Amino acid sequence: MQASRVYSFPVMADWSKRLAGIKGLVLDISGVLYDSGGEGGGVPIPGSIEAVKKIKSSGLKLRFCTNETQATRDKFVEKLQRLGFDIVVDEVTAPAPAACRILKERNLRPHLLVHDDVIPEFADINKADPNCVVIGDAADNFSYKNLNDAFQVLIGLENPVLLSLGKGRYYKETDGLKLDVGVYMKALEYACDIQAEVVGKPAKMFFQSALTEMDIEPHQAL
Amino acid sequence: MQASRVYSFPVMADWSKRLAGIKGLVLDISGVLYDSGGEGGGVPIPGSIEAVKKIKSSGLKLRFCTNETQATRDKFVEKLQRLGFDIVVDEVTAPAPAACRILKERNLRPHLLVHDDVIPEFADINKADPNCVVIGDAADNFSYKNLNDAFQVLIGLENPVLLSLGKGRYYKETDGLKLDVGVYMKALEYACDIQAEVVGKPAKMFFQSALTEMDIEPHQAL
Repeated sequence: MQASRVYSFPVMADWSKRLAGIKGLVLDISGVLYDSGGEGGGVPIPGSIEAVKKIKSSGLKLRFCTNETQATRDKFVEKLQRLGFDIVVDEVTAPAPAACRILKERNLRPHLLVHDDVIPEFADINKADPNCVVIGDAADNFSYKNLNDAFQVLIGLENPVLLSLGKGRYYKETDGLKLDVGVYMKALEYACDIQAEVVGKPAKMFFQSALTEMDIEPHQAL
Repeated sequence: MQASRVYSFPVMADWSKRLAGIKGLVLDISGVLYDSGGEGGGVPIPGSIEAVKKIKSSGLKLRFCTNETQATRDKFVEKLQRLGFDIVVDEVTAPAPAACRILKERNLRPHLLVHDDVIPEFADINKADPNCVVIGDAADNFSYKNLNDAFQVLIGLENPVLLSLGKGRYYKETDGLKLDVGVYMKALEYACDIQAEVVGKPAKMFFQSALTEMDIEPHQAL
């Protein structure tokens, strides 16, 4: 049995001290604003729709930072809007677009092991004769065959490069806990005796790009 | 491209020194006696059928030690006999029977994530209300769903116990390299933040049981 979380609220004086100089907020989405899974694609966590509204009306800058890689940003934001959230695509920092920037910068041609629904994010990336592997939260696409295919690409490279869209262990869906991309990242790391490069939380660079997009400094963010 | 292996043979005097006091031999099977995969289940490595014959006629004790967990020992030995090897079931030390001994000793009831063909080895093991997970080289049974099911059993236990039938990274089949059980062991270790117990090579206890079965001491074995 899991103990329920108990939050203690500091008095108002403490809050105003902590908020002094704060210009923007970075918010997680899955598990914070909503729990994914089920028929409608998930359910909002009570109070979160109102919280987003309040933050926006307060004048603070707001950026949503997610490791969600089971859908394109467009589809993901559509779902959140349908659930009632005040959110647009340009407010979301996600691993797939960040990975595309890296692939282009370093002339990397990926073999993709990702969710079908996120493949469109890589539409304008050259994937012929792959010289790296990109894995995301592929869920049911994490078959033995698909993992073995990714492994064979990596083990055949002189300098195997593995980009992992996040390194989470598991996440909660409405019907229970599900294995996340980090588990399969570790699997390929062990198979090839290599270290993956993580694109997404908790990589510093990923948070930094969210701040850059808000045009604020780290000390001005919460 | 892989470099071909070059063996240098010491002169006879060296060999007789090294063999002084040696009473028994432990031989690997997959990748040493034969390469698995393909239509007939594999092909003998040139010279290996004759080598087994010579060792047996020399009067040395012989034990085959394998991490093969894609079949019961019976089926595995049948295949090796069909390929031409002089081998019987009682000469083979394999992880599944070793795991069964551990399960019984410690009153563990396993959730199995193994190859269909090795399930009969666990026929007389109580598997109701599992309090541990046993993984073997499950190959295509390593689906996302099956790995997630094993994960959910482990994460729900107060003291998660994971027995892994080997810890290999990959092995060679006639049609290429295949991911081995160790890769999925690492995946579950990371998911649950635990350490697996390895049953099979290279665990010392596993080799020890092969020697016990030959009734010889470690310094008498090669």
